Amino acid sequence: MALTDRVKQILSWYSSDNPGTQTNLARLLNYGALAGTGKLVILPVDQGFEHGPVRSFAPNPAGNDPDYHFQLAIDAGCNAYAAPLGFLEAGAAKFAGQVPLILKLNNSDSLAKMDHPISAVTGSVEDALRLGCVGIGYTIYPGSGARNRMYEDLREITLEAKRKGLVVVVWAYARGAGLSKEGETAIDVISYSAHIAAELGAHIVKVKPPTAHIEQAEAKKMYDKHQIPVASMSERIRHVIQSTFNGKRIVIFSGGETKDTESLLAELREMAAGGSFGSIMGRNAFQRPRDEGLKLLQEVIRIYKDAASSGR
Amino acid sequence: MALTDRVKQILSWYSSDNPGTQTNLARLLNYGALAGTGKLVILPVDQGFEHGPVRSFAPNPAGNDPDYHFQLAIDAGCNAYAAPLGFLEAGAAKFAGQVPLILKLNNSDSLAKMDHPISAVTGSVEDALRLGCVGIGYTIYPGSGARNRMYEDLREITLEAKRKGLVVVVWAYARGAGLSKEGETAIDVISYSAHIAAELGAHIVKVKPPTAHIEQAEAKKMYDKHQIPVASMSERIRHVIQSTFNGKRIVIFSGGETKDTESLLAELREMAAGGSFGSIMGRNAFQRPRDEGLKLLQEVIRIYKDAASSGR
Amino acid sequence: MALTDRVKQILSWYSSDNPGTQTNLARLLNYGALAGTGKLVILPVDQGFEHGPVRSFAPNPAGNDPDYHFQLAIDAGCNAYAAPLGFLEAGAAKFAGQVPLILKLNNSDSLAKMDHPISAVTGSVEDALRLGCVGIGYTIYPGSGARNRMYEDLREITLEAKRKGLVVVVWAYARGAGLSKEGETAIDVISYSAHIAAELGAHIVKVKPPTAHIEQAEAKKMYDKHQIPVASMSERIRHVIQSTFNGKRIVIFSGGETKDTESLLAELREMAAGGSFGSIMGRNAFQRPRDEGLKLLQEVIRIYKDAASSGR
Amino acid sequence: MALTDRVKQILSWYSSDNPGTQTNLARLLNYGALAGTGKLVILPVDQGFEHGPVRSFAPNPAGNDPDYHFQLAIDAGCNAYAAPLGFLEAGAAKFAGQVPLILKLNNSDSLAKMDHPISAVTGSVEDALRLGCVGIGYTIYPGSGARNRMYEDLREITLEAKRKGLVVVVWAYARGAGLSKEGETAIDVISYSAHIAAELGAHIVKVKPPTAHIEQAEAKKMYDKHQIPVASMSERIRHVIQSTFNGKRIVIFSGGETKDTESLLAELREMAAGGSFGSIMGRNAFQRPRDEGLKLLQEVIRIYKDAASSGR
Amino acid sequence: MALTDRVKQILSWYSSDNPGTQTNLARLLNYGALAGTGKLVILPVDQGFEHGPVRSFAPNPAGNDPDYHFQLAIDAGCNAYAAPLGFLEAGAAKFAGQVPLILKLNNSDSLAKMDHPISAVTGSVEDALRLGCVGIGYTIYPGSGARNRMYEDLREITLEAKRKGLVVVVWAYARGAGLSKEGETAIDVISYSAHIAAELGAHIVKVKPPTAHIEQAEAKKMYDKHQIPVASMSERIRHVIQSTFNGKRIVIFSGGETKDTESLLAELREMAAGGSFGSIMGRNAFQRPRDEGLKLLQEVIRIYKDAASSGR
Repeated sequence: MALTDRVKQILSWYSSDNPGTQTNLARLLNYGALAGTGKLVILPVDQGFEHGPVRSFAPNPAGNDPDYHFQLAIDAGCNAYAAPLGFLEAGAAKFAGQVPLILKLNNSDSLAKMDHPISAVTGSVEDALRLGCVGIGYTIYPGSGARNRMYEDLREITLEAKRKGLVVVVWAYARGAGLSKEGETAIDVISYSAHIAAELGAHIVKVKPPTAHIEQAEAKKMYDKHQIPVASMSERIRHVIQSTFNGKRIVIFSGGETKDTESLLAELREMAAGGSFGSIMGRNAFQRPRDEGLKLLQEVIRIYKDAASSGR
Repeated sequence: MALTDRVKQILSWYSSDNPGTQTNLARLLNYGALAGTGKLVILPVDQGFEHGPVRSFAPNPAGNDPDYHFQLAIDAGCNAYAAPLGFLEAGAAKFAGQVPLILKLNNSDSLAKMDHPISAVTGSVEDALRLGCVGIGYTIYPGSGARNRMYEDLREITLEAKRKGLVVVVWAYARGAGLSKEGETAIDVISYSAHIAAELGAHIVKVKPPTAHIEQAEAKKMYDKHQIPVASMSERIRHVIQSTFNGKRIVIFSGGETKDTESLLAELREMAAGGSFGSIMGRNAFQRPRDEGLKLLQEVIRIYKDAASSGR
Repeated sequence: MALTDRVKQILSWYSSDNPGTQTNLARLLNYGALAGTGKLVILPVDQGFEHGPVRSFAPNPAGNDPDYHFQLAIDAGCNAYAAPLGFLEAGAAKFAGQVPLILKLNNSDSLAKMDHPISAVTGSVEDALRLGCVGIGYTIYPGSGARNRMYEDLREITLEAKRKGLVVVVWAYARGAGLSKEGETAIDVISYSAHIAAELGAHIVKVKPPTAHIEQAEAKKMYDKHQIPVASMSERIRHVIQSTFNGKRIVIFSGGETKDTESLLAELREMAAGGSFGSIMGRNAFQRPRDEGLKLLQEVIRIYKDAASSGR
Repeated sequence: MALTDRVKQILSWYSSDNPGTQTNLARLLNYGALAGTGKLVILPVDQGFEHGPVRSFAPNPAGNDPDYHFQLAIDAGCNAYAAPLGFLEAGAAKFAGQVPLILKLNNSDSLAKMDHPISAVTGSVEDALRLGCVGIGYTIYPGSGARNRMYEDLREITLEAKRKGLVVVVWAYARGAGLSKEGETAIDVISYSAHIAAELGAHIVKVKPPTAHIEQAEAKKMYDKHQIPVASMSERIRHVIQSTFNGKRIVIFSGGETKDTESLLAELREMAAGGSFGSIMGRNAFQRPRDEGLKLLQEVIRIYKDAASSGR
Repeated sequence: MALTDRVKQILSWYSSDNPGTQTNLARLLNYGALAGTGKLVILPVDQGFEHGPVRSFAPNPAGNDPDYHFQLAIDAGCNAYAAPLGFLEAGAAKFAGQVPLILKLNNSDSLAKMDHPISAVTGSVEDALRLGCVGIGYTIYPGSGARNRMYEDLREITLEAKRKGLVVVVWAYARGAGLSKEGETAIDVISYSAHIAAELGAHIVKVKPPTAHIEQAEAKKMYDKHQIPVASMSERIRHVIQSTFNGKRIVIFSGGETKDTESLLAELREMAAGGSFGSIMGRNAFQRPRDEGLKLLQEVIRIYKDAASSGR
């Protein structure tokens, strides 16, 4: 499939990468209903690991089946499906070549009490390659006292992934002793976290939608002094994207907590208006009956398609 | 030996694995009295390491001899015999080719006080290969503050084992500062632990029989809201298996504490009715005189054979 | 380009290094407006990582764009541009061959509370090579309880970098439980930190401008007894350079906190008079509008050019 | 030298080992005054490291000389001489081929206060090979909070040693926060420790002579219920050997604290009567004048020769 | 140069080492004013790292220059010059082949507060080889809670150094929570530390001159019971050497704190009388004006030359 000008433009930001990685990035941008638009909707399913199977799949028990999510991503026209080792391995052969895959390389569960927030590394670049993935995913917790271990593990994974032609997607979720609960989604913290992920070499950065709260006093001075607009969601999305190499890195946003469809779509329209590159939407999609989840994903895709058409 | 349809179906869930691992999985499913049924009874003997020799073998001192357990597993028609390095090494040459072996790669003793529950890694994939094993076993303690170390060691072992064609069996025993004693066998915790093991890439998951207790408040809400039945053992077994990739991973259950034969068999019948893939039975088998232990194992095998015939 | 006598003299101090490293050192000394003088002005941009994007780039939002800094360094005639992995990678292909690059291999953010000051290792020698860099940068915090981990990571990095022909630049910033805040820039501590960096094998040492404060009692006795002059900045710079292998290692100084242009240039003239090998100037350059930043860098370069002409 | 039936029988317990290891095990069993009997007396000299030179060698200063111990082992007809790196290296070339050597791979000194009992790893399998050793020795402290580190280091050493044809001798000395001082030599703890060493893959296990004390309540129930006889030393030795793979692993015992000759020999006769495979005797041998030490070792050897003749 | 009988005798103690290491040991013993005598005087300059440049070089600022120490060692006729990576690297090419070099592989600074005394590893065997050194130096702190890390790092370094034909020099300085300040130079502690260094595989052991204080009660009993003479310095030196493999390992002593020339030389004569193999003298040599430092070193050399002539 020929590349659109927009996809070519995006690839130009990653010109230091080898052709292998550029190929996989192109695959991601050229798959599904948003192919060629430069926008992305990704289906992630790591909630079974993170929150446990009953909290994740009781509302729609079909989601216990690993095949379910491959098929949902394919049918909805998502750009990719992302999951931990076990869930991907269970369907990778059966669905080989039908949807781009992203192997989530670290995960945390809700059973243990840890000294500092830190996920366990549960997969490897070699796993991603043998399963035919286009990329790997890794979660960092900026703000955690175990930050160095996470950044350093990611460094090694990133180096290997880039050498072997994979795309690196980084989930940047600030948390830890130095941050308030509210601060985890503060505009300054989200911007900073996204910037860190990009500095660590991420091709695609995933953050939560930011609030208007500002956590750090030193940052607040700057927002005030330079009158940076962060009142509306679209302003905040624009600010986050600017903070992440001035828009030269792909930044996508999670849907956040499960919520009703209307408020979810309204928020997404605001995010698209702010220039978001797309969404990563898990629970909101697979915790509904299949037809509803499918419909929702298609509506989300529609929002980004419209945004792309209007040049945002 | 030709594969039965059921074994072929089970192998289809592991289609991402290489032929080496599929061959060893087939060996496991095609050996002993349950060959071809898709059910498994495994004899594990790591109690000498875990609880000490006198607590393990005083009731039947013949069990001090490593040869004893090889012969018991062979004579009873078990699918496999699982033990730590020393016990396997002592008989692996003598009994070579007579019973599938699983090398238990980590173990804990009862002499030390540890900060967090965590076993020592006491063997390697290379040991498993040189001893002719079909697979390796590894214990994780979800809920432990040392969770990351265990998951990460397992990740490396799993990657190597799969590359070299071995089967990975994970013992998932929740324990640690975040859980009550009762919570270790709670239905939500057992389901979650089994799910984690599967996400970490286990081919076969081993858990304890779950109780009707629910440990985590967030999980309880889901059980209540969606009215998930967990009152009977067969319901709970069914729920655990559903939580472990909707039945697309082999889940087997331990016999638990030594108990009288009748209540043991009654519980096993319930578990079989719930769709259990089989049992892993150690102390209940080798702490009785040989003829009694042999008889018990054969009765257990009979229960699973009957379950398989009736399509459960 | 033929080497000047001064550059040949400087290279003679590094005669134990292989031709690859000497070549890259020559590239650094032979590039830009100060080529051949033996003086260096380097543009470093790691503030996005260290302090966050809003604190770094709000005063001049164009600085969010990674291309901006490459171009600024080129246009100003700097000897090199230094940045973390992400920022370098974003422009390394586009600006290939246009300015010597230094990959900053470790970084710290301002979100986490750490037990001891220690940066995360965020890049590798292999990254530096694939991005076409002439050298790598690494920050040590002498005085930190995590000192050994930093020195030992640096040892491995340095060994590999020298084997592969790269230049090693060490940022030596004393901090930690054993030092007062004022002590971090004390003349004895800065001298000691620069000496440590040189002993660890740095080719180029970067420290902050020292104050006349003396932190350690044992050191104070020596300053008093031997009447070592440290009252003026030029005396202190001379002392730091003497302490760093008697001037046989390149020592450059940061501009410190953002300040007004006049006091900045005045301080730099004092430093140049003391024999400084040059400056590494980030925030003072990129936090102004581009034309002002450019002008400032050129004035700084002029100061060192004059110093070189007058043989300092 | 042809192998006796007894030595062949012993080697049959190690039939999973490669011919290299079996050859070195045969060398050990076929050397010195006890050659062919299946009994072993080993001279260990690590007390200089463990307790310091003056506490070790002041009673017989000739023992400061590393040559002394090689010659003593040779002249007494011991099966092997075991010592740390330095002591072996000092004489390995001079005495090459004159006595089987065992390199002690970890050691602890009496100068430091450690958080948990754990020896430092002070030698490697490669050292053992270059010095011509038949095997390596390693000390574990079951009961220590640093248990996992020790077991895991041993696992790696054991794997390499077996791959390269060496014999693995494990010193199992229980100690740590979970045990009373008296418990360190309790019959249940000694049996358990010996079992652990065997499970970890030791070819030869070395423990202290057990007392009749029982440390763990759970174990005590078993001793009482099954009326296991542990009143006499010979009964206890028999129990330890049964607990160590039912006699299918070589278990040898230390002489313990320095004591008078008569009580020492009396205790050894009891141990031989209980089926001990032999003794490892250091301080009692080298802290006396050479002729006395030599005489003692020969008397000990005589006890085991007699035991072997009478089929124990 | 042909080897003297004394040098041949010394080499015979190291007969387990490969010809590479024996060659470098011979180079050390056959260089400078003491060539062939079996005595050694080594110039060590790691004080810049350990105490800082001003405390080290203010009394004689010429010492800031790395060339200074190479030339001083050469002119004085020292057997070798020992220093950390930076200082050696700065002159290794310029002075190649003019004096045997020892690369000090670990170092500590005086800026940080550490939990346990432990130096950072700041160089490697590969560094020593590329710089043309005859050996490497490593400091252990027996008595430190971080003992195991130091011994284990040294084990790996020693193994590699010996494989590659280098000489291993171990600085053994007892310190840590288990020792009083006075105990650090107690005769029992110094003897024990030297013995540990030798057991760890050191070819040359460096300790401080011992005092008559006895630190450990268990050791004191032995000194009293066996009436070991330690009242005079020469007796103590003799005892330390006896404790270090009965004189079959080279033991040299530091000059200790800076002191006046007469008392220094008097102490050295006592040490030589006790059979010391030589001295390692840093601060006392380079903190004086060059002619005085040179003269002092030559007087020290004279003392050892006389001692060698008179057969001590």
